[in-house]
Amino acid sequence: MRAYVTVMLKTTVLDPQGKTIHGALKKMGYKGVGAVRQGKFFELALDGGLDKAAAQAEVERIAKEVLTNPVIEEFSYRIED
Amino acid sequence: MRAYVTVMLKTTVLDPQGKTIHGALKKMGYKGVGAVRQGKFFELALDGGLDKAAAQAEVERIAKEVLTNPVIEEFSYRIED
Repeated sequence: MRAYVTVMLKTTVLDPQGKTIHGALKKMGYKGVGAVRQGKFFELALDGGLDKAAAQAEVERIAKEVLTNPVIEEFSYRIED
Repeated sequence: MRAYVTVMLKTTVLDPQGKTIHGALKKMGYKGVGAVRQGKFFELALDGGLDKAAAQAEVERIAKEVLTNPVIEEFSYRIED
């Protein structure tokens, strides 16, 4: 089983990395991009011993307590067999 | 329209960030995680003027030429209305 966790800055928080990439894309002539935001992506390989509900609870705890700074970031995740 | 691009180190490339997170999780008592790999995630807001095929081509070019270092990284993307 694998879990995929995406951590993004909250939309109310300024994202200078994304702004820089957006500026670079514009300068390089890429059209059609209105905004860019950058986040982090984590791929967790889960041991087979966990059932789906336990895996979900574990991944949620890990995302909340380790991977995300709750003051400025928010996370989403999905679990795949 | 929004595009979501995920950039990960190739599986053949060592990922020290992921290894560090994995070590930390183990020390903190989280069970059931066999491995962790970290990557980057980009959210691109696309202007409405593009149709789906054009958006796809544009995002693929941006991912290939700007967001990814093809020597050590690989990308995947999806586009949502």
